[in-house]
Order: sequence, then C-alpha cells, then structure tokens
Amino acid sequence: MNLIQSLRPEARQAPESGIVAVANHGRGKPGLIPLWAGESDLTTPDFISQKTIAALQAGETFYTWQRGIPELRQALADYHARHFGGSFRPDEFIVTGSGMQSIQMALDAVAGHGDEVIYLSPAWPNFPAAVGIAGATGVAVPLERTTQGGWVCDPGAIEAAITPRTRALFVNTPSNPTGWTADRETLAAILAIARRHDLWIVADEIYALFCYGANRAPSFLDVADPEDRIIYVNTFSKNWAMTGWRMGWLKIHPSLQQVFENLVQYSTSGVPQFLQRGGVAALEEGDDFLAGQVEQAGRCRDALVDRLVATGRVRAVPPQGAFYLFFEIEGVTDTRAAAISIVDEANVGLAPGTAFGPGGEGFFRACFHRRLDLIEEAADRLAGWISAR
Amino acid sequence: MNLIQSLRPEARQAPESGIVAVANHGRGKPGLIPLWAGESDLTTPDFISQKTIAALQAGETFYTWQRGIPELRQALADYHARHFGGSFRPDEFIVTGSGMQSIQMALDAVAGHGDEVIYLSPAWPNFPAAVGIAGATGVAVPLERTTQGGWVCDPGAIEAAITPRTRALFVNTPSNPTGWTADRETLAAILAIARRHDLWIVADEIYALFCYGANRAPSFLDVADPEDRIIYVNTFSKNWAMTGWRMGWLKIHPSLQQVFENLVQYSTSGVPQFLQRGGVAALEEGDDFLAGQVEQAGRCRDALVDRLVATGRVRAVPPQGAFYLFFEIEGVTDTRAAAISIVDEANVGLAPGTAFGPGGEGFFRACFHRRLDLIEEAADRLAGWISAR
Repeated sequence: MNLIQSLRPEARQAPESGIVAVANHGRGKPGLIPLWAGESDLTTPDFISQKTIAALQAGETFYTWQRGIPELRQALADYHARHFGGSFRPDEFIVTGSGMQSIQMALDAVAGHGDEVIYLSPAWPNFPAAVGIAGATGVAVPLERTTQGGWVCDPGAIEAAITPRTRALFVNTPSNPTGWTADRETLAAILAIARRHDLWIVADEIYALFCYGANRAPSFLDVADPEDRIIYVNTFSKNWAMTGWRMGWLKIHPSLQQVFENLVQYSTSGVPQFLQRGGVAALEEGDDFLAGQVEQAGRCRDALVDRLVATGRVRAVPPQGAFYLFFEIEGVTDTRAAAISIVDEANVGLAPGTAFGPGGEGFFRACFHRRLDLIEEAADRLAGWISAR
Repeated sequence: MNLIQSLRPEARQAPESGIVAVANHGRGKPGLIPLWAGESDLTTPDFISQKTIAALQAGETFYTWQRGIPELRQALADYHARHFGGSFRPDEFIVTGSGMQSIQMALDAVAGHGDEVIYLSPAWPNFPAAVGIAGATGVAVPLERTTQGGWVCDPGAIEAAITPRTRALFVNTPSNPTGWTADRETLAAILAIARRHDLWIVADEIYALFCYGANRAPSFLDVADPEDRIIYVNTFSKNWAMTGWRMGWLKIHPSLQQVFENLVQYSTSGVPQFLQRGGVAALEEGDDFLAGQVEQAGRCRDALVDRLVATGRVRAVPPQGAFYLFFEIEGVTDTRAAAISIVDEANVGLAPGTAFGPGGEGFFRACFHRRLDLIEEAADRLAGWISAR
C-alpha cells in the first residue's frame, strides 16, 4: 500500500481546485490579463496596512484572544449596524483566519460524518470540497437559468432535496459564480423551509455590499429572528482588497460563543493580533474605499457585458451582485479546453465553469473586479476570440 | 431544542481549555507573573518583523501559493538539513497557519469518524480536543513517572493500546507538559510498532531545539526511512518568539503534496505572503537568536527546579527538553483549586495539571521560558506559598 492509499479517503479524494488547474497553465505568461481569481488588482490600502505595521512595531506578537480582540469585535458590531440596520453586540462575532475558515468552522459546528448539506449550484467549489473533507455529503440544488441569461432559485427544489440526513442549507448570495442575488421573498421562503425541517442555515453573504443598483443585497438579517439557526460566514478579503490577509469572521448567536471559541482554539488558535489592528481600520475607516470599489466594479461589469453581448454569441445579463460574469459562448461546450485555448490565443485567463459543479459545465467565469481599462482590453480580446471561431 | 443542543455533538462537547480557565481568573492582576502560557516574554525580533513590514509595504497582499511561497519552503529545507543532517527538498514542506493547524490537517489526513488515535499522556490538551472534533477518539497511553520525578515511555504500553480502529500514533517529544524527551531507542521502538500495525505517526517535535545538554532532541528523522508513514507537525511560534504570528509547517513525503495543498485550500486557503517573508528571515537568520533563547531557558529551568526542590515538598528533575516544569507539591491534590489560590496568594500563574488529561491531575505546569529574574522571583513566591502551607 503506498502512502496516499493509506490516507483517510475523504482527504485523499478532495478535488484539486479546477480554477487553480487552469491558472497554473497561464501563470507568468507575458501580457496575460488574468480574470480567474476573485480578487481586485489593488493592493491593500495604506490606512489598513499602517495600523498593522504600527502594531507589529509595538510588539503585539503574543498569543491573543481566541475570539478576536475586543476592538475588532466592537468594530464588527458597528459595521453591521451601519450597513444592515438594527443593533449588534460584540459577542455575536468571532474573528477567523479567512472566510474559508469561517465555512470550515460552521461546518464543524453543524455537520459531519454521514450528514448532508444542501447548497445551490453552480457554486464556489471550495464549499462542497470542505463538506467532503468533513465526512459529510454536499447535495447540489441547481439554480434555474432564465431565458434572458439570469438565474433564479426555486425554494421548492431546496425542500425537495431534504432527507432525514440533511443538517444544513448553505446559501451564498450574492452568488459566486453566478451573481444570483436572492430577493427578500426568496430568503424568507428558504428560512421558512429551514424552520420547518429544523435545519441550520450557513449564510455566505460576503458580497452583500457588492450590489449594483442598491446599497446592499437583501440579507437573512432582514428576515430572521435572533433565535433562528443561522451562522453567517464572512471575510475581510473582498471589501478592502485584503485577499492576502486571511482574515474573516462569523456572526453567530451569542449563546454559541464558547463553542466557536473552542473551534478556533483547536484549529488555528487565533488570528495574529497585529493583523486584527488592520481589520479594525478596514471596518472603521473603509466605507469610502469600499464604495469606490463597488462603483468601479459596476462600470467594469457593464463594459464586459456590453462587449461580450455585442458579439451576438454570448447570452448574459449584468449580474445584480458579486463581481463575476458567468457566461456561455454559443457553440463552445468543453469550457475547460476552451479556457486553455483562451489563455494561449487571447491572453485572457478565465475560470472554466466545470470548476463550479453541476450546472456550470458550459460556462466561463470572469472576475470583473479590475481596473476598467484592463477589463475593456480583456473584453475586446475575448470578443475577438469569439468572433474568430 | 435550544441552539447549542442542535449543534453537532462533537463540536458542542469540545472542552474549554483548562489553561484558559485559570488564566481568565488572573488576567490583568497587578504584579502577577504568568507562567501558564507556552511563550516567552520577548517580542518577535526586529530582523523578522522588518521583512514582513517591507513585504506589506511592497504590496504583497494578494492570494498566494497554497503550499507556501517557494522561498519559505526552500528555507525550511535548508533549516532541516542544518539542524537534523541529511538533505531535504522544498516539496517536502507545506506552510500552515500554526502548529495547531498542522495538527488539524494531519488528523484530517489520517483519522476521522470512528477511528482511534493513540497519544502519550499527560499531553497538551489541544491534541485530544482536535481529535474529538474530527469525530475520532483519542486513546491516552500514560507515560510512567520515575521515582526521581522524571518520565519514561513504555513502547509496550502503546502496542497494547492498539485496536483494529487505531489509525495513528501521536508522539510529542520533547513533551509539553512533562519535558519527557524520547531517546533514539524509544523512537525506533515506536516506529517499529507503527510499521508492524500499518499506522501513521504524527510527530510533534516542535521543541526539538529546546534541548538541554545536546544540540537537539532525538527525532524520528534519525530512525525513519523516507517511505515511512510519518507526518511532522511544526511551528514558528516557539523558536523565534512568534507565538502571535500563527504560522507553522508540515514535513511530509513529497508524494502527499497535492493532498495537503487541497487540505490548505479547503481550510484557510493559505498563509499571508507578507507573514511568510518574516518566516524566511526566522529560518535563515534566526539560529543565533534561537541558541540564545535555549541557553536562557536552561538557566531558568535550573533556577526554578533548584528553588522548588529546596522546599523539600517538590519532587522534580530538570526536564531534558521543552520549556515546562511539570511538578507535584506534596499534600496538594486539587491542583485546579490550588492554581487559583496561587494566583490569589502568590501572584504567580500556573496551569493546573488537570488541563493535561490522564496522569496530570496532581501536577502543575510552569513555563520557564521567561526572563531569568522573573523566574527567580516567581520561584521564590512559589516556594513561600508552599512553605506556608
């Protein structure tokens, strides 16, 4: 028996990221415009980094609060009150080592071996992969494609997928990769299902403020009661160009604090205090930066959609939220092979829809959270590639 | 059903750290000398922090290699070759978000629901707690106490604890909390058992260089073949006063790289690149700092042991490795209550042995990795407290 075969099956069977596989093909190619990763091309703003540098120079290099420093949990409460209305308390928040870790901890809290977790598909692949490593089974419920090229969720399809093993519903809105953004009625319908079947909701609303035509996307916070079984997972990555910081948070019912503190203690044992100082700055001083990012992303979205639709071979509507366009090209079915060709021939990096599970096969994902001129250039190259086929 | 009751049992039953519980009692007490945590009182040295500050200022704030940046993996290979002999390759190393996360990932790789993992007790409580969250069962095999007050491991006791469900042996040497340091023959005997029963070894040798009277502690690296099933978990925390950085590493067989990259991707999605730059400095330029730390810890060890033994009420021998003294006080049995009294009456913070599982009940753990004058003062206070009883 070789070494890999003697590993736990759930670990050795975890899939390689289908995004990384194409990105590896194009890494370092001169002139390539990479739109495969979910991050902007801006470095973290100075007002954030400077706070972290100051804390590091001041020697904040010891073990720290497993739940997060009090200042950061207060800043999270204030941020939520400002953007979502109502009032929030610091003890509703747990600082984590990334949005991904927030998801891992939420899963550890609600589902394990033999359990099922329902999620909407196409989906960010890391979620079902983490479910599999936890020994649970991810059950994909497809979003429906509209004739115009948008996406809708049928809550009835969620309810139909529930079995006695179902423990949780994972709802990502606005959605990566589709941009589907649940309206309030859909959220209320999903919540009613969760209540009816005693299920947890893991709410991934990390793109809530990347919403076009509204200040923010509808949230489960708008429809839920405090006692509802909802765990909100979130990240500093997207709002403030902090993808490389690996910081996130959870919003939970305060009665669950000690359980989640234990999950922090026994997974990464906390987040560097000097990084958390930067997080405080992001939350307290970052609204303008964020608003500017969203405004720019909206312009980039329109530029990309307009140019692709103009080819006559792409059916797409501007997504309401997040910063991805998930689109088909008429006549292209093997999108993984095509993504490689597009790297080679158009010098643009797209993520193949195959990376996003059931319903994603015929699609490409382009991140448009970039400088406008780069998006325009990438869109022109893609349009040229499409027209030449 | 309340919210906590509807959580996954393995999560809601994870124990609160018994160290933290006492630390919370004494936090902020004026003049307290806290010896409960496993960290020195030095801030991270400037030659490390400066590299991180420079990287942050240079804008290294994007997603990065899931395995760790190439420079850091090379530095890890060089560090291992320098201290352990032989040659190492960068593709044997995976950068993680702490020694704790290294352990979590090693567990995810080898044991899950229904499996058993054997560990030596008394033990750092985070290990069995992480085993429980993973849905597996930790099986404690007690170290034996010598009449002089040291500790030894009987490999036969390990073998006797193996069942058809056993998947791995967790071996922490030098040990937190006991200071037990396996000799080469014991390591060879444990390895032979693992080979005979097709088990993985998770080798926690994070204190290998905190060894008194030798350059380093014996390591499984001294007795194993490359194809042996051993996963080494490690951390930057202890060697270079980087407890607050949350960075660690795994040394694995190169054939397991992709599996562990996937485990990184689906847990925290990597470690901040600007932190990794500091890690490179620690490994490449940190030998002198580390040697100085070990020399000081040795002096502190002797000062603490001498003063406690002089009371005539403490039986202890200087531990060969790590930086903890794990000791009994004659006539004191409820060490958790006594640890609280010692905070209140002697103004010294100790971790109660109850936090370290089977075999630890009658003990206290004192971390002596502190300034010598503070250790002397703390030891005098403890001696006074002991003598007054």
